[in-house]
Amino acid sequence: MKTSEKDLIRRVRAAASIHRDSGIRLGIGDDAALLVPRHGYETILSSDWFLEGTHFLRDRHRADSIGWKCLARAVSDIAAMGGGSRCFLLSLAIPETHTGQWLDQFLAGLRRAARKFKCPLAGGDTTRYREILINVTVVGEVRTGRALLRSGARPDDIIFVSGRLGEAELGLERLHGKKRIRKGDPTWNKHLYPVPRISLGRWLAEDRIATAMMDLSDGLSSDLPRLCEASGVGARLEASRIPTVVPNRSGLEKIELLDLALHGGDDYELLFTVHPGKTGRLPRSFEGIPLTAIGTITTEPNLTLVPLDGKKQALPIGGWDPFRPAKRNQRSRSFGVRKNAEP
Amino acid sequence: MKTSEKDLIRRVRAAASIHRDSGIRLGIGDDAALLVPRHGYETILSSDWFLEGTHFLRDRHRADSIGWKCLARAVSDIAAMGGGSRCFLLSLAIPETHTGQWLDQFLAGLRRAARKFKCPLAGGDTTRYREILINVTVVGEVRTGRALLRSGARPDDIIFVSGRLGEAELGLERLHGKKRIRKGDPTWNKHLYPVPRISLGRWLAEDRIATAMMDLSDGLSSDLPRLCEASGVGARLEASRIPTVVPNRSGLEKIELLDLALHGGDDYELLFTVHPGKTGRLPRSFEGIPLTAIGTITTEPNLTLVPLDGKKQALPIGGWDPFRPAKRNQRSRSFGVRKNAEP
Repeated sequence: MKTSEKDLIRRVRAAASIHRDSGIRLGIGDDAALLVPRHGYETILSSDWFLEGTHFLRDRHRADSIGWKCLARAVSDIAAMGGGSRCFLLSLAIPETHTGQWLDQFLAGLRRAARKFKCPLAGGDTTRYREILINVTVVGEVRTGRALLRSGARPDDIIFVSGRLGEAELGLERLHGKKRIRKGDPTWNKHLYPVPRISLGRWLAEDRIATAMMDLSDGLSSDLPRLCEASGVGARLEASRIPTVVPNRSGLEKIELLDLALHGGDDYELLFTVHPGKTGRLPRSFEGIPLTAIGTITTEPNLTLVPLDGKKQALPIGGWDPFRPAKRNQRSRSFGVRKNAEP
Repeated sequence: MKTSEKDLIRRVRAAASIHRDSGIRLGIGDDAALLVPRHGYETILSSDWFLEGTHFLRDRHRADSIGWKCLARAVSDIAAMGGGSRCFLLSLAIPETHTGQWLDQFLAGLRRAARKFKCPLAGGDTTRYREILINVTVVGEVRTGRALLRSGARPDDIIFVSGRLGEAELGLERLHGKKRIRKGDPTWNKHLYPVPRISLGRWLAEDRIATAMMDLSDGLSSDLPRLCEASGVGARLEASRIPTVVPNRSGLEKIELLDLALHGGDDYELLFTVHPGKTGRLPRSFEGIPLTAIGTITTEPNLTLVPLDGKKQALPIGGWDPFRPAKRNQRSRSFGVRKNAEP
């Protein structure tokens, strides 16, 4: 099956479905795309790798979910700033063998995600390669001065997370294990079809609820230190309050669930801090997603965990760093799919 | 040599050198970058692959030139719209073996290009991979309504190109051949360190000189048909007027030079059309770069070439399409480095 570049671009273009009011004045087909920025907004920019062998496996992950997830995780960076997405650029490199059904399914998943996240395809680049390589750049916007950075956390702020942590990692473990997974299993869906918390992020930013925010992509034990370092503070987490996978669904011990919640990646939930005087404005859940206080920001720049048995200890770092020596990445490597590192 | 993600990001960040007045409110280190759009401008967006084995060879192209060129070719898409660049995002995937000297040299070339093109690094993504994978997204801007598209050419418009065509391809041939190349040889530099025509493009757009424009990345015989198709027109080229590599420097026959000029890629010169009533406003050269009329836009939607011996014939297509059957890509494949396809 031979596919010309023109045919390939035509098919990618058909997946673009740009609305008139999107502000995209020029989409796929010229040297570059043109976007009309909205007055009173700043532009948010984020690029994310999604690579075969690193972020997904060609023979384990269906093309539809690869299409969905490559966009979802890039949009999550926009949500983490408190912004909304405007459009995205897709850079796709695929083998000739994948220009047929695989591409159709990939584009179907991508299109569903683009509609769901109100983030149309505006341009990109295609070429042929041995491996399936994906890079997604999402362009978003946030009201001028309202972006939530990692650096805004202050001592005594309360640390919150959205959703339940460790679900995506458990979904990944199940994908690699022999366990049968029920259709609709939340851990399965969270691994394959994560949903970035766009409206929650925007509310926290526009109503000036949170002081700092980021998304959880590499795992709480890797990401929280980044927020603390950017803010020049420390944190004390309480293990008993961390929202894990619902125990009776998983068949796992409480301590295993905590381990997943601390070190599992790919959840794309929001981690944010709130001034203690403002926590009363937070509902217990937002659009059905639980919001949970899991600890407190401290002046001392170290991270401690009050474990399930109540004794305080230093927080073990367990998320993924692709440039860290292998033995410290055992959890992720044992699953064969590594999480990502973002500058 | 083990490099942590943090160390890698620190080194990439050091190459960013963001000026205060760049409009980048937040660079590397958070979930995403923040850019303040300028009032009265539209945002230009372009992503480009630069992949080992496809666009460069690890053992033939020095890291410094890979750093320069990956940015130059993406900036060229901004120039092709008549805009200026604001900032770029770098997505870099490299083997552990390349996090030392190779990375230093790559970043040095990238930094030189970023300064030259006034296009600071604002963010991106890094990870580890078997091959060296690069994706660059450049964000540019153009005065509202002034962008030059591929679709604006009209019958009787005069077709122009900047610079000399085929130089980069000859540089590539020399890289692969055994010929020694003098330092400062223009074909060598053009292959390794192309310079996008930013100020020329901006002048043609802002002063409303050109009617349509694109950059020459895949070769005149591949790119001109794209401009014609977008505009719904045809073109007649005159071989004798096409500015080739200077003959006495190359040791090649005139017909070989023409072949290089028609089908060679990677020149990153501008191809543009001008209403016949406005050609008088064009100087013979712009900032030292020759501007040459090479043909005319026609109503009939086919492409013809008046060859050196004067007899009109259909223009043979010879540039690179990664999804075209291999035998039609002989020129590019024989050099082992393929040119790129952009949607």
